[in-house]
Amino acid sequence: MTVRLEMGAGGQPMQDLLEQSIFKIFDSPLLAQGHDAAQFDLTGKVAFTTDSFVVKPLFFPGGDIGKLAVCGTLNDLAVSGAKPLYLSLALILEEGLPLEDLNRILTSVATTARAAGVQVVTGDTKVVEQGKGDGIFINTAGIGLQISLTQMLPTNLKAGQKILINGGIAEHGLAILAARENLDLGGEILSDCADLSGLTETLLQAGGVTLFKDPTRGGLAATLNELAQASGLGINLVEKSIPLDPRVEAGCGLLGIDPLQVANEGKLLVFAEADHAESLLEVMSRHPLGQGAAIIGEVTGGPSGKVHLTTRIGTSRVIDPPLGDQLPRIC
Amino acid sequence: MTVRLEMGAGGQPMQDLLEQSIFKIFDSPLLAQGHDAAQFDLTGKVAFTTDSFVVKPLFFPGGDIGKLAVCGTLNDLAVSGAKPLYLSLALILEEGLPLEDLNRILTSVATTARAAGVQVVTGDTKVVEQGKGDGIFINTAGIGLQISLTQMLPTNLKAGQKILINGGIAEHGLAILAARENLDLGGEILSDCADLSGLTETLLQAGGVTLFKDPTRGGLAATLNELAQASGLGINLVEKSIPLDPRVEAGCGLLGIDPLQVANEGKLLVFAEADHAESLLEVMSRHPLGQGAAIIGEVTGGPSGKVHLTTRIGTSRVIDPPLGDQLPRIC
Repeated sequence: MTVRLEMGAGGQPMQDLLEQSIFKIFDSPLLAQGHDAAQFDLTGKVAFTTDSFVVKPLFFPGGDIGKLAVCGTLNDLAVSGAKPLYLSLALILEEGLPLEDLNRILTSVATTARAAGVQVVTGDTKVVEQGKGDGIFINTAGIGLQISLTQMLPTNLKAGQKILINGGIAEHGLAILAARENLDLGGEILSDCADLSGLTETLLQAGGVTLFKDPTRGGLAATLNELAQASGLGINLVEKSIPLDPRVEAGCGLLGIDPLQVANEGKLLVFAEADHAESLLEVMSRHPLGQGAAIIGEVTGGPSGKVHLTTRIGTSRVIDPPLGDQLPRIC
Repeated sequence: MTVRLEMGAGGQPMQDLLEQSIFKIFDSPLLAQGHDAAQFDLTGKVAFTTDSFVVKPLFFPGGDIGKLAVCGTLNDLAVSGAKPLYLSLALILEEGLPLEDLNRILTSVATTARAAGVQVVTGDTKVVEQGKGDGIFINTAGIGLQISLTQMLPTNLKAGQKILINGGIAEHGLAILAARENLDLGGEILSDCADLSGLTETLLQAGGVTLFKDPTRGGLAATLNELAQASGLGINLVEKSIPLDPRVEAGCGLLGIDPLQVANEGKLLVFAEADHAESLLEVMSRHPLGQGAAIIGEVTGGPSGKVHLTTRIGTSRVIDPPLGDQLPRIC
């Protein structure tokens, strides 16, 4: 059984898909009402975000497009200092997608959302002809309530603040690439795809956080350059402190790609007041998603807008923002 | 200039696209902050909805995918009894899409949103390889605040309630079909694509509304059958009362399609207490989007779950929900 064009046409075949598959998998009262919009009470500072997911392949070691679509949007809310509450789910299906794959992906969406304590409350399904899509594209939009009293702005950065990360970099991008190209990198590398909202909440409670950021597309290089430019400050990374799984390092070397430019989907950068850095590192290390946590650098007065890396041999080099498309369709 | 893969990869090319095109067109302070999530204060009963748009062709008489993507989501909020406030915008671009087309579509999004008084506050851009998409797919999610005191539920329907519509049916679907297939239907037929949120607000203030619904994919046939099934009541339509442009009627006849099954994108079905129907018709007729308004039928005690049509020659026939994909990729 595969997805057919008429499942997106608003008639009985779409109703059947909704009732026999989607509503059952989600078991969400708000979603199953099938209304034009979900309704709920909300009071406070709301955070709102959206992401579309076009990752290829749909299934990869450590996750799939469904898990990724939930984690990606939860993480955008989390790094904004919000607690995620509600998700929308919009599917663009390509005619011919096996229904078994669709159900597996939707189950992954539902499981990941449930584990994070968020509800999928509204959705949409469209179908395009074979050759006009690529299996499935997913959009999730998310609503959360701010728990951080300060907004997560690049202007929060000050020279002397420390930069922490919760574990090894470049794992998602390399896992995708290895799966896509069927590369044998000497043992399976898992995507780090994870919901960071529990970790951010814990860190906010501990105090001393000035900014969160998740280094996704373009990796640390893109994220840190954006922050350096937006804040007008410098950033210095210490290469030997940056957690990097030896297999990931070997894989990147083999493929000639820079791990600093590779996407992460379960990594959190934390900017911290210097006198809170050690205690935040401890808090992070006690969290299931912070086992490999480390302090990897600091904010400096300058050179303004630039990111530098102190290499293992003690020299300093500039880390530029990625220019090309090292790894397209990574999320 | 066309869209390139690296514009979706998170580095400088994506930043350039954002800064030189998207932020300029929208002129939205929340969007231009470029944060992971937009933040705003909200208090009350929130309505939340999402829709992806895959319409083909991207430009059609009366609109384009950008206008449609805004109106579609605004209308989902409007028929839920909410006032739309904030939109997200997520783009899946196919490599090779002319940047001129992209800018034209984004301008259309911005213009339509501005006219409706809503802000596009958060977004996302992905790029897929040529042949893995179809020009552009757009997702919008929308947040509004409920202005209707009663929730718009099928269970609000009672026998005797009247059904109103704000104008001629089947115009969107026929306009798309004519544009896609290059059909000459004896004069250009325009899509009815429009933001209904002003009209719904006016009607709610007038009183007597029991339910709104917008008959989009699957047309009146799909929408009314869903409501009949969900309410366990019958619905009776009067064929001669249903507004239908003679050119649209002729076009449907020529193509062998039933106008009752054709999608609308600016039509509002209003269920009204019988003693409010005439006054609501008057209010509707005075609104720019209600010039062709009419009372087209009523809710009946039964047969339960069925929609009937009293034809022009006085006979009665059952209107079934659409089974196939008369018109794929209509929205």
